[in-house]
Amino acid sequence: MSLKNRHLFGLKDYPKKDIESILDLAFKFREVLDRPIKKVPSLNGLTVVNLFFENSTRTRISFELAQKRLSCDTVNFSASSSSLKKGESFKDTAQNIEAMKIDAVVIRHPSPGAPKTLSKFIKSIIINAGDGTHEHPTQAILDMMSLKEKFGFLKGLKIGIIGDILHSRVALSNIYGLKTMGAEITLCGPPNLIPEFLKDLGVNINYDVDEVIDWADALNVLRIQRERMGIGLVPSVREYRNFFGINQKRIEKHKKDIVIMHPGPINRGVEIDSAVADGQNAIILDQVLNGVASRMAILFLLCGGKK
Amino acid sequence: MSLKNRHLFGLKDYPKKDIESILDLAFKFREVLDRPIKKVPSLNGLTVVNLFFENSTRTRISFELAQKRLSCDTVNFSASSSSLKKGESFKDTAQNIEAMKIDAVVIRHPSPGAPKTLSKFIKSIIINAGDGTHEHPTQAILDMMSLKEKFGFLKGLKIGIIGDILHSRVALSNIYGLKTMGAEITLCGPPNLIPEFLKDLGVNINYDVDEVIDWADALNVLRIQRERMGIGLVPSVREYRNFFGINQKRIEKHKKDIVIMHPGPINRGVEIDSAVADGQNAIILDQVLNGVASRMAILFLLCGGKK
Amino acid sequence: MSLKNRHLFGLKDYPKKDIESILDLAFKFREVLDRPIKKVPSLNGLTVVNLFFENSTRTRISFELAQKRLSCDTVNFSASSSSLKKGESFKDTAQNIEAMKIDAVVIRHPSPGAPKTLSKFIKSIIINAGDGTHEHPTQAILDMMSLKEKFGFLKGLKIGIIGDILHSRVALSNIYGLKTMGAEITLCGPPNLIPEFLKDLGVNINYDVDEVIDWADALNVLRIQRERMGIGLVPSVREYRNFFGINQKRIEKHKKDIVIMHPGPINRGVEIDSAVADGQNAIILDQVLNGVASRMAILFLLCGGKK
Repeated sequence: MSLKNRHLFGLKDYPKKDIESILDLAFKFREVLDRPIKKVPSLNGLTVVNLFFENSTRTRISFELAQKRLSCDTVNFSASSSSLKKGESFKDTAQNIEAMKIDAVVIRHPSPGAPKTLSKFIKSIIINAGDGTHEHPTQAILDMMSLKEKFGFLKGLKIGIIGDILHSRVALSNIYGLKTMGAEITLCGPPNLIPEFLKDLGVNINYDVDEVIDWADALNVLRIQRERMGIGLVPSVREYRNFFGINQKRIEKHKKDIVIMHPGPINRGVEIDSAVADGQNAIILDQVLNGVASRMAILFLLCGGKK
Repeated sequence: MSLKNRHLFGLKDYPKKDIESILDLAFKFREVLDRPIKKVPSLNGLTVVNLFFENSTRTRISFELAQKRLSCDTVNFSASSSSLKKGESFKDTAQNIEAMKIDAVVIRHPSPGAPKTLSKFIKSIIINAGDGTHEHPTQAILDMMSLKEKFGFLKGLKIGIIGDILHSRVALSNIYGLKTMGAEITLCGPPNLIPEFLKDLGVNINYDVDEVIDWADALNVLRIQRERMGIGLVPSVREYRNFFGINQKRIEKHKKDIVIMHPGPINRGVEIDSAVADGQNAIILDQVLNGVASRMAILFLLCGGKK
Repeated sequence: MSLKNRHLFGLKDYPKKDIESILDLAFKFREVLDRPIKKVPSLNGLTVVNLFFENSTRTRISFELAQKRLSCDTVNFSASSSSLKKGESFKDTAQNIEAMKIDAVVIRHPSPGAPKTLSKFIKSIIINAGDGTHEHPTQAILDMMSLKEKFGFLKGLKIGIIGDILHSRVALSNIYGLKTMGAEITLCGPPNLIPEFLKDLGVNINYDVDEVIDWADALNVLRIQRERMGIGLVPSVREYRNFFGINQKRIEKHKKDIVIMHPGPINRGVEIDSAVADGQNAIILDQVLNGVASRMAILFLLCGGKK
């Protein structure tokens, strides 16, 4: 059981068979995480570097736990305390770390395409943990795992993705992955934040969130970044909440049993209300757990772990 | 051998039998720390998160070493680099980390009661590593361990606690723990920094440090926080030192063999002089070692480790 | 097989036999690093603290990987987030950490002599990871290992060290180590940055970099710190590059097969051009790998690891 691509840059053109392999193994690791001893020796003796050029406690801890539970050694590199400050290039930093004989690099970087660029400089296996507004494939894998856990299948599922689609790597990776798996997608959010060309990827666009709720089996509610508000990109909190906020009233009026996802961190009272986020249809914390299991599966399959 | 309470929030109303169980086991782990291989497999496969909302290298390293020597996996979370900056709530942060399947949380937080609040949000075992001016129970356990090591018993021991009692979680946890174990306590410091209601806990208050030295078997000298000086709370360094500073002259005049404790970090020349802090009656560095052993015992007993 | 000195403060007067022991073992660990499982249980159960009073991602990660691959427990202490901010003394910080029962301390500190001072305060084994402008012995060991790997021997090798010799701990440790091993050294750089007294150590000084290239078997090109420019110490980038920059034209004119070393991080286009740094004679990335192997050997020999 191995994957076609050596690296995981994104889910664009990613083989359906490989997504299935990752999901199958992720469900097995999910069982490991329910045991008293949540650890397997699969990647013992391997070294993985978490190369984070952007802060992200949540994603970093998820990867770190996945690595420790596979028994590999972990080194955390954060750009803020590094030689980058001394003017070292991205290439030199990467080549220097690789020269210490590491097996895989988990990279988060503000620039779209940074993981692919990295692959030109080093020979290690590379996993994209978010590159600017481009892709965040492990988030999409864990989202698909969470949907499959809930519904039992992905093909034909109707998913609404709500929010700032334009700046969201989560949205783009979800679109690629879910379309490959045969799901239907409707994007919803402020018109200036949904690029028209996304229609070419076979998704629907609907600016009426109530209609999307009526239609969808599940909603993936994106975080609205407050720093984008008041500069013309996103309307005020109040206005955004009014038009696109997922609240209990809206859910009850349209579809009480709709499944609610959110990649976190949540802006309670902005893109989603607490009653919904903490409600019985929300699978937000399952997503977090599935994140560790998914990342274990991806690391295992890419690094050639042994059972 | 297990403890009555699932969590360790503080030593108020903490069962005497459980303090004894912790101390007994701590002395056994202390022996492990004297071996060439200072590690046992007791908590292998468990994950403990150090959730620090306040900086504390000293306490964090002590817990981290306790965890590593019990063979559990450790994840460090510091608030400064986290999603809290993105406006995520305490509850969401905690629930997200717990969702990754962790077994215990060691929490330090500036707000009194934060560990108890946390227990309403998550199911993990919680250990208070200091919550504002409230309690610091593991510090009091290691203080009691150090006293028991020195004297062989706690019942009837006379302990003077010197300093800013009002703002000290160390003092409060010491009072609760030592009273439970049958020790006698006298508080000493500037009158405005010793709340009168503490008398209800069965402690003495005496503003004359020389009398307290005459009376006590051991002194627990608290750190005076320089940032509290000059704003009406604490007198000047010179004045504080004059009235309450523990110096060699004072010790020799009154009781040469009095045992000296300090939770660190020390302000040499303020609340304590170097001659005393480094003298033969000081057990300050024993406290540090006993801190690791105590935290191993607490983690082991709360997490149900196997021998 | 053990070393004469308990600590590694520097290579001044360091026994030739011990450098040979370290290099021999380093080459064996280098083989371990080429295996799929790059880990040995040699130092299992030991605790090493990385006590960094100066930022250095590169050196810290190298030591951390060396430690993990020897299976010892690692604790990272960085001064920026520590009690030092609360006014704790260097001595108290060190003694507190040691009291937690650690076996060795890797220290980086801005003050020359700090590792030796530390040895007066604590009993642990101490390894100097750079002390101000004084020494950086593990860098010199890895440089010698890289030269020996390339040439097969050190005795009689002709090494040019190019740059700001005055402020370089790398240069000083290289001089001590290489002279002990019988190599010949020529220093080259701006005259105000090469102290005349270094001649007493048996090295040559030559301000003409082209002559040095003609003469040398290998160049160790030091990083020019941009913050030293424009304040009278180092000429402008352009001028420095003109007089001392190692570029392809210079190399081809004089000696095409000269071996190129650099301790990193590189200022491309200043002290060295990319064509040279990335050329076939550069062993810069080998130095990085040998750094991990050298540090494994040093830790193993000082901490009395078992095979």
